[in-house]
Amino acid sequence: MSHYTVDLNCDMGESFGAYTIGQDEEILDYVTSANIACGFHGGDPVVMQKTVKLALAKNVAIGAHPGLPDLAGFGRREIAISPAEAYTMVVYQIGALWAFVKAEGGQLHHIKPHGALYNMAAVNSNLSEAIAEAVYKINPELIIYGLAHSELIKAGKRLGLKTAQEVFADRTYRADGTLTPRQLPNALITDPEEAARQVIRLVKEGVVKSMDQIDIVMVADTVCLHGDGPHTLAFARLIKEALLQEGVILQPQ
Amino acid sequence: MSHYTVDLNCDMGESFGAYTIGQDEEILDYVTSANIACGFHGGDPVVMQKTVKLALAKNVAIGAHPGLPDLAGFGRREIAISPAEAYTMVVYQIGALWAFVKAEGGQLHHIKPHGALYNMAAVNSNLSEAIAEAVYKINPELIIYGLAHSELIKAGKRLGLKTAQEVFADRTYRADGTLTPRQLPNALITDPEEAARQVIRLVKEGVVKSMDQIDIVMVADTVCLHGDGPHTLAFARLIKEALLQEGVILQPQ
Amino acid sequence: MSHYTVDLNCDMGESFGAYTIGQDEEILDYVTSANIACGFHGGDPVVMQKTVKLALAKNVAIGAHPGLPDLAGFGRREIAISPAEAYTMVVYQIGALWAFVKAEGGQLHHIKPHGALYNMAAVNSNLSEAIAEAVYKINPELIIYGLAHSELIKAGKRLGLKTAQEVFADRTYRADGTLTPRQLPNALITDPEEAARQVIRLVKEGVVKSMDQIDIVMVADTVCLHGDGPHTLAFARLIKEALLQEGVILQPQ
Amino acid sequence: MSHYTVDLNCDMGESFGAYTIGQDEEILDYVTSANIACGFHGGDPVVMQKTVKLALAKNVAIGAHPGLPDLAGFGRREIAISPAEAYTMVVYQIGALWAFVKAEGGQLHHIKPHGALYNMAAVNSNLSEAIAEAVYKINPELIIYGLAHSELIKAGKRLGLKTAQEVFADRTYRADGTLTPRQLPNALITDPEEAARQVIRLVKEGVVKSMDQIDIVMVADTVCLHGDGPHTLAFARLIKEALLQEGVILQPQ
Repeated sequence: MSHYTVDLNCDMGESFGAYTIGQDEEILDYVTSANIACGFHGGDPVVMQKTVKLALAKNVAIGAHPGLPDLAGFGRREIAISPAEAYTMVVYQIGALWAFVKAEGGQLHHIKPHGALYNMAAVNSNLSEAIAEAVYKINPELIIYGLAHSELIKAGKRLGLKTAQEVFADRTYRADGTLTPRQLPNALITDPEEAARQVIRLVKEGVVKSMDQIDIVMVADTVCLHGDGPHTLAFARLIKEALLQEGVILQPQ
Repeated sequence: MSHYTVDLNCDMGESFGAYTIGQDEEILDYVTSANIACGFHGGDPVVMQKTVKLALAKNVAIGAHPGLPDLAGFGRREIAISPAEAYTMVVYQIGALWAFVKAEGGQLHHIKPHGALYNMAAVNSNLSEAIAEAVYKINPELIIYGLAHSELIKAGKRLGLKTAQEVFADRTYRADGTLTPRQLPNALITDPEEAARQVIRLVKEGVVKSMDQIDIVMVADTVCLHGDGPHTLAFARLIKEALLQEGVILQPQ
Repeated sequence: MSHYTVDLNCDMGESFGAYTIGQDEEILDYVTSANIACGFHGGDPVVMQKTVKLALAKNVAIGAHPGLPDLAGFGRREIAISPAEAYTMVVYQIGALWAFVKAEGGQLHHIKPHGALYNMAAVNSNLSEAIAEAVYKINPELIIYGLAHSELIKAGKRLGLKTAQEVFADRTYRADGTLTPRQLPNALITDPEEAARQVIRLVKEGVVKSMDQIDIVMVADTVCLHGDGPHTLAFARLIKEALLQEGVILQPQ
Repeated sequence: MSHYTVDLNCDMGESFGAYTIGQDEEILDYVTSANIACGFHGGDPVVMQKTVKLALAKNVAIGAHPGLPDLAGFGRREIAISPAEAYTMVVYQIGALWAFVKAEGGQLHHIKPHGALYNMAAVNSNLSEAIAEAVYKINPELIIYGLAHSELIKAGKRLGLKTAQEVFADRTYRADGTLTPRQLPNALITDPEEAARQVIRLVKEGVVKSMDQIDIVMVADTVCLHGDGPHTLAFARLIKEALLQEGVILQPQ
């Protein structure tokens, strides 16, 4: 009998005003936790309310998805902020999302930084400590989602926070355990069957084959699915079904 | 023995980035509650954190001071938002400020809309209901501060919320109980002695003399002091001292 | 031999960062002039550059499409700005778009306000004068596009500017010559054949049948097509073909 | 008879909405050219109009002062933008300021990047080429102001643009000709007499003594004065008087 469990998460609520991005309502059928944008890199108050309601209706765990204040760059451009600034940006955004969850009678479950903030936190321990402290001071029960084995996970653990190490279904890994940067060839896995195999090995064996064909050890608490793109839903469905067929239990961290 | 009490409040935390406005630290010595901007019309995450810390250090009750999303207009220009949009803007901003208060170990006490949102809510019952509902759904213990006898106060009372009816030390009133608009002559009371007399009558007698020299009935739970301007601190000190001399107890609502 | 001419215009360049709206490249095949957003209600510098290049490549006349500073509301919510503020907002946005046109070796042709600014200007002569003055002081050769018979057209004429009176293919008119507000039933014409007939009568007879079945006189220099929506391209193609079949010459004002 | 000339420039127009920064009107009495913010890191359309009028009234040459889109960080935080993005940001901002100058009957004279964009351009040749190209395509007569001997100056020269090499009165230099970073001790010269001596040597001898007491060669076409701070005006007056006493002619580049 299987005792493997994993969480499937997806970023969402990134539409803004008249602009729509992502297929939030549909993707919610395939994930167990949702990272909802908080208005800095995407999302606005109306979108946040709507997305929180959708996630609650589908019984999906809700996380805050704070980003850098850069709507034009969708939070993907690094900005040279100080740890003290990062702390306040994260407190602000968690609070804003928390309020929508509270108003709808739900519970905030986790926090996962977005885009450049996620990437900067992965390698910068001072920044990660500031983010983890923001989470801790608002609510030490909140779980930090971050890149597996990253500085953000370490910072969360040092503060005694629960953490969820995140892996990717559609990204390749290098021998040192980092993701192949997007601008390099072979950074993305476009074959859903191959992606599913990668996820299953990550969940059941705790390893991933790197670009150099070496198996590397990798903790996989949660798998990130992407919410946009033409094949998103088919991809998500296939990953979910493959995991269920292998007897893996899908549940939030 | 006196049993008169009143709250003195002031808007603050309206600085932004490199820009400073107001004399927050000094004015905190004269007020019993602080309305802290939430980043839409003024304020930013760094300023919010700093202002919350100052207010807690001086034992002043903290309120969220949500405004319209119009930094260039300082939230003073009316924007034709729907009640549904107002609801989400208020939820968002209360949440953001709440998070800073929570992170510092304090308690959020009240909410007072800013500028054009305050004025629109005073006369628009649908808008006021949306704002009151936002407050109620986040925390029904929060107190709504609004213009005395306004639609916002009525909407708060209908939901069973505690309310604080606000009067102004340095503004004149018309016979119908509304404030003389700023663009009219005699809208402002510039003599601090006269302002103090107006406040004392409001607090002890529950009346204010209108521009037409008629006494009108006015509930005065809280008095708004202004945080900017060259004579702000002297004005605040004089109002506070005059009230104390009359035996009025100064305390948050 | 026909001597009827008309301009077909469309708003475009309203995408923003990672967000796409409209089918700019395709709709450019059906119009003779393009109103390009300038970054306040939609558009950003990257989008502006790209859209200017597309319009020049397709030999479509380029206009600035300034809006209110309200990206979250897509410039559709009225903001209580003063004429002096409107003047500066329009100068700023025309200049920004002009620079992209200049950098690509083109010529700025016209200016058409967007959304709430367009509607406010249609009925407010002070606001319209401020907008017309902004145009005049930057370049008195620029043409003002505005609602037919509106205050904006009148203000432009008073300053000696060329104007283009705008009519709508897919909107119904009331007996006083104003558009039926969108929230009312029958505001929109969804049958493209009916829209084409309305446009042809406007162009060739200078009249439009109002909701009350009365023919009203209406100058039609330019017809607005909408750039978004599922049937946009089919609609645009049909209007264009119907006009050409009637011998109407399509050209910018 | 002296033939030394130099330009004194100052950043200004960086106020925003209700927020005031700098002493623009006063500092204009001491400079020969003004770098006016364009709304990204500071400034707004109303402020831009007002500042352009002031500069024209005082016969000071006007430059655009484009920055990164980061009002909260006052354009001082690096953002990882691509050269293509930088190009469009600079085109946009130059155009916006140009329009105010045009509307007032003046001429745009130069362009100087602000804050982090200035610093990034100083060392990044790709970014500098993009900025220089933006200037060139709008108007090849515009002069580029940049850090003396920087990549921005080189990029401008390669395109055949006129350039103005900028030096600082109140900053110290390192042996390699770069500025001592602000966070280091002795980065700032606080004694105005010493600052004046540094400026005079720069202008008349073309050298500056570095922190290591070595004279280094430095072209000084324009001297940057700072517009904010308590001693700004006294400092500016002293520098100006010292230069005049030495027979240096003050004029725009």
